[in-house]
Amino acid sequence: MQMSKARLEAFSDGVFAIVVTLLVIELRPEHDGVPAREMIVHAVPQILAFVLSFVVVGSYWIAHHRFLHHFTSADRVVLWINLALLLVVAFIPYPTALIGATHGDATAVQLYGLTLMLANLLGVMLWLYGTRAISGPADLVPGQRSRTALVHAAPVVIYAGAVLVAPVAAALAIAAYAAVPAFFILAGPSIDRFLAR
Amino acid sequence: MQMSKARLEAFSDGVFAIVVTLLVIELRPEHDGVPAREMIVHAVPQILAFVLSFVVVGSYWIAHHRFLHHFTSADRVVLWINLALLLVVAFIPYPTALIGATHGDATAVQLYGLTLMLANLLGVMLWLYGTRAISGPADLVPGQRSRTALVHAAPVVIYAGAVLVAPVAAALAIAAYAAVPAFFILAGPSIDRFLAR
Amino acid sequence: MQMSKARLEAFSDGVFAIVVTLLVIELRPEHDGVPAREMIVHAVPQILAFVLSFVVVGSYWIAHHRFLHHFTSADRVVLWINLALLLVVAFIPYPTALIGATHGDATAVQLYGLTLMLANLLGVMLWLYGTRAISGPADLVPGQRSRTALVHAAPVVIYAGAVLVAPVAAALAIAAYAAVPAFFILAGPSIDRFLAR
Amino acid sequence: MQMSKARLEAFSDGVFAIVVTLLVIELRPEHDGVPAREMIVHAVPQILAFVLSFVVVGSYWIAHHRFLHHFTSADRVVLWINLALLLVVAFIPYPTALIGATHGDATAVQLYGLTLMLANLLGVMLWLYGTRAISGPADLVPGQRSRTALVHAAPVVIYAGAVLVAPVAAALAIAAYAAVPAFFILAGPSIDRFLAR
Repeated sequence: MQMSKARLEAFSDGVFAIVVTLLVIELRPEHDGVPAREMIVHAVPQILAFVLSFVVVGSYWIAHHRFLHHFTSADRVVLWINLALLLVVAFIPYPTALIGATHGDATAVQLYGLTLMLANLLGVMLWLYGTRAISGPADLVPGQRSRTALVHAAPVVIYAGAVLVAPVAAALAIAAYAAVPAFFILAGPSIDRFLAR
Repeated sequence: MQMSKARLEAFSDGVFAIVVTLLVIELRPEHDGVPAREMIVHAVPQILAFVLSFVVVGSYWIAHHRFLHHFTSADRVVLWINLALLLVVAFIPYPTALIGATHGDATAVQLYGLTLMLANLLGVMLWLYGTRAISGPADLVPGQRSRTALVHAAPVVIYAGAVLVAPVAAALAIAAYAAVPAFFILAGPSIDRFLAR
Repeated sequence: MQMSKARLEAFSDGVFAIVVTLLVIELRPEHDGVPAREMIVHAVPQILAFVLSFVVVGSYWIAHHRFLHHFTSADRVVLWINLALLLVVAFIPYPTALIGATHGDATAVQLYGLTLMLANLLGVMLWLYGTRAISGPADLVPGQRSRTALVHAAPVVIYAGAVLVAPVAAALAIAAYAAVPAFFILAGPSIDRFLAR
Repeated sequence: MQMSKARLEAFSDGVFAIVVTLLVIELRPEHDGVPAREMIVHAVPQILAFVLSFVVVGSYWIAHHRFLHHFTSADRVVLWINLALLLVVAFIPYPTALIGATHGDATAVQLYGLTLMLANLLGVMLWLYGTRAISGPADLVPGQRSRTALVHAAPVVIYAGAVLVAPVAAALAIAAYAAVPAFFILAGPSIDRFLAR
């Protein structure tokens, strides 16, 4: 069975777009007559969790685009790895909401990190499987396949460290989650040169 | 009246993508000061229900793609069968949430099974109607039309058994719901050979 | 300013798809330990309201497709009439939820009817404005433009009657709302012949 | 890294469509046995906030389309500015809900204005960056680039005034927010002539 890449991208784009937008639902104010200023102050942890997850899911969307750019078609295995990846991405609003609701409880921060680890690992699987038959300079320069896998797997180490450190320093773990997309934004051109060298 | 297949697919993809993503809303934590670990433990039935329904709806999306691949256009009847199918698929979050909220109450498990039975039957109708005018080896090998209908109708028997058994063994019924997509994932290549032989 | 029809359709399809799917959110079960059977019985009015609105919005989506099929492009006025139509369609979940929550309170039933009246009138405006420059048999047969406007405006009379009758017979009004899409489904082929004669 | 404009538009359209539709979720009626008429009267501030934000986000969607029409492709910086813009747009439902829930508390009205200011500034950044390499009459007439930036930046001044005036006259500030899209709807043809002169 072959599926057109176009419809796979359309479905995936839909899920990514809905996930980033759903994140804001958690911010819904309670209707209990408190003044707006107090509601906003109370919602600051949720707003920060919303911004963090928006940027994280946005990064996944960009990576997903880059990966599929090199796929020629989508067979059954690609479909199911992709669905597993989307399942994990669609789950992200839950630990996000947990972090916001508990103001950074260690277990919530750990669940967040485990979710991101799983998302990155499934992303690496999608990349390695989808490009397994691609060779030669037309699509990828020599070594680009393994270097791309490496770049996408590296944050797993950061996330694992954050999960370990969360019980004693939850804020540091959250900072580590935020540092990964910040690094990819700032170091993007260098990473591109590393991948294409 | 003819509708382009492209717009029918875009609308259907949208509904499928939103349904799988909406499922996670049910997981929203309550803001009542309990620690995250307790919230997560309490949410385990909902998380499992989320994963099950994500995989089920993902399977429907893949089947929907395969069906429409063989359609040449969409007339009024295709549109309305498709809308009925999407209505049932859009309903899935409700029995999913019921199963999660009641931790597997038998009636909730039965409603879930009845919903899936209806979804599969409407899928078979969509397939048989949409391919009624297709003949010859260009589109389908001889017998592929009826074999595809059979493969898509078969789970209805499993679901019916699960609905009957739910009052005495709800967990077994849920396992049966999970077994269907698991079977399609594992036996996929064999099914493809059966359909195309 | 000209906008491509493709992007207008994509945005509109997105809104239609999200509206039909959002309708199910209202069905979310309360987590208060009542058995599932009771929750379902209690949710029957909401489930019926969900089905009604799904079919109504599905009809609007089909009509929208048929209308835009005859447009050659989208200027500023088309964009804004279309946005106004989508605004009214996006509002439908609110009276739907009101009908479900109040088990058919007359005022809720009236607000539902007024919303549908507005949606149909904006649909007629969109059609008449978007086809104002179209002439000749290439696009439309003589009289098809006005007959289409008539067919799309006719339900406004039914809805107005339902709004008037709701205070004394809310169930009859709801039946009238359901009768309109049922009529269009059953009489579709005859309507097509009437439009194209 | 280059991304196709098509996928950037599809993702952005998805986010815009979801945001406008999500706005209605805030209107969900409370299930506490009050008659529908009372619920509706109580929801009027939320309904007005829904309409305002729908029109505002609809305007942003139209502006976004016009901007991307002139882009030839999307590099990394375009992607991230666009994600930042979508983040702010996806945030709009929160101050919208705050205004509705607090019936126009000054702080909620100010947060709304600050959010719109940020959205317009990011829109101007997207436009200026995305068109930085475009020159000549093929794409833009001389001066169209800076005039377009000016037209899109001008509302920031109105919003800033509204934020300043909100503590003493919240209703006036809300009227100012509504005046901006109203002006763009009514003055659209004149603005087009100004941009293209």
